[in-house]
Amino acid sequence: MSVLIVGSTALDSIKTPQAENPRLLGGSASHAGVAASFFAPVKLVGIVGDDFPARYLRLYERHGIDLAGLQQAAGPTFHWSGEYEVNMNNRRTLATELGVFANFQPALPPAYRQTPFVLLANIAPALQLHVLDQMRRPKFVVADTMDLWLNLAMADLLKLLRRIDALVLNDSEARQLTQQDNVLVAARQIHALGPRYVIVKKGEHGSILSGPAGLFVAPAFPLLKVVDPTGAGDSFVGGLIGYLAGRQGALEPNLRRGMIYGSVVASFCCEGFGLTRTTKTTRAAIEHRVRQLEKVARF
Amino acid sequence: MSVLIVGSTALDSIKTPQAENPRLLGGSASHAGVAASFFAPVKLVGIVGDDFPARYLRLYERHGIDLAGLQQAAGPTFHWSGEYEVNMNNRRTLATELGVFANFQPALPPAYRQTPFVLLANIAPALQLHVLDQMRRPKFVVADTMDLWLNLAMADLLKLLRRIDALVLNDSEARQLTQQDNVLVAARQIHALGPRYVIVKKGEHGSILSGPAGLFVAPAFPLLKVVDPTGAGDSFVGGLIGYLAGRQGALEPNLRRGMIYGSVVASFCCEGFGLTRTTKTTRAAIEHRVRQLEKVARF
Repeated sequence: MSVLIVGSTALDSIKTPQAENPRLLGGSASHAGVAASFFAPVKLVGIVGDDFPARYLRLYERHGIDLAGLQQAAGPTFHWSGEYEVNMNNRRTLATELGVFANFQPALPPAYRQTPFVLLANIAPALQLHVLDQMRRPKFVVADTMDLWLNLAMADLLKLLRRIDALVLNDSEARQLTQQDNVLVAARQIHALGPRYVIVKKGEHGSILSGPAGLFVAPAFPLLKVVDPTGAGDSFVGGLIGYLAGRQGALEPNLRRGMIYGSVVASFCCEGFGLTRTTKTTRAAIEHRVRQLEKVARF
Repeated sequence: MSVLIVGSTALDSIKTPQAENPRLLGGSASHAGVAASFFAPVKLVGIVGDDFPARYLRLYERHGIDLAGLQQAAGPTFHWSGEYEVNMNNRRTLATELGVFANFQPALPPAYRQTPFVLLANIAPALQLHVLDQMRRPKFVVADTMDLWLNLAMADLLKLLRRIDALVLNDSEARQLTQQDNVLVAARQIHALGPRYVIVKKGEHGSILSGPAGLFVAPAFPLLKVVDPTGAGDSFVGGLIGYLAGRQGALEPNLRRGMIYGSVVASFCCEGFGLTRTTKTTRAAIEHRVRQLEKVARF
């Protein structure tokens, strides 16, 4: 079955002490869309400006991503630039230029409205709600969010939580949302706000699923070298929903394995700037790492 | 087979906003010894003063711990006191009184020298070396350490590393020892210093084993409430070596399961002050949590 993914489509300029990486393809929908495309057909909803490079449209197309929902507007594409420090551990934002994204109103082509799996990748909760308003009884809806919306748009976020099946967020965001230090207690409180499933991302420490059948603790794929973690969280959730859409059978075991597949796609994402490494991987390479992760976690 | 455990035996006074917990049984050898006792016979090597409560000797005895190697000297027992802040997240040391521990020289009774499994729990590396000098060809030697010895006794620690099978340390200590941010890279560098097995403890995020057969990523037992993490690391390594000593067969799978059993004993430790919760648990309760952890980690 197919996946509808709505989120940001951006150009990311990432400086390091060694190199400049100007105007790489980025944004939550780009990372999640490419990640999901290894497992299921993807319909992308987003907006780009008239400066958006044609090679990135071809990149989406090579991944079989349906672009009927990708709006192109007059003006510049959302542009983010940042710089890594010498040890590559800290990244600071140099500039955020919203461009055409400032007036983005996701409008779904009629053919998109019955897509069974929906990923509301990280954008303003009001836009995520606007997408849900246009959908007809989706089978499973996952929403990602970030600290920015906890600070700026809590009322919208609380409305959203009542309408989704699964919320994905970082451990620090789970703590911020609930004022609870223990992430398991935080997950319980988030269930009370709506979602049956809560997935807490912990970066290199893996992720935790809390749901009706209890907890699942998923390992991260161990990496000796992280080049750039930008988009890893989006890749994780994109791989997760793509895997779910590509599988039949009971939801819970598929969700667990989906988190493993998401971790593996995220590991490829971390090994290159922007999408440069993710786009070079294959389903076979993903399956190979999943088998490695099975060995690493077996006891 | 039996386990020899050498380390500190102490009295810990732990204040909280709600209660005082004066002179609880503590120290690395106490936590590790009780943890190991659920799986194999334990021989304890340590020192206590003439103020050491008889009820704690009986506690050791109830756990079947052989006390022929526990020295009793004139003077006060090692005493540590600390205080938790209101939110129970930060603990600060109020006083550290070494007492008879200041002049501790571990002397092994002849019957101890051929013990097959040895845990050098957290004490000065010079003392850990002194114990090894007295052993006759042990089967498997694990050493634990802490940041204090990285700062004060690096030369001794490096000598020790060449003589042990496995080193156990925290992620922050692995980074400090190697000056490497990535714990997997740090583990590789520690192998080059001697130990075939390196086990990195990551608290609530579990632990990682690096060895000749590759990596093992072990989950922590998920807890909704942590009362006092003091001694959790000692309980982990005690449970690990106790489990190893109680098993036959190939080392590597036993090490992996030993880390799971260690995590479970550490989870009990965290649920009470000092050893109060650990000493109330049973092998059956441990096995129950191991089965829960198997379910939580399955995909």
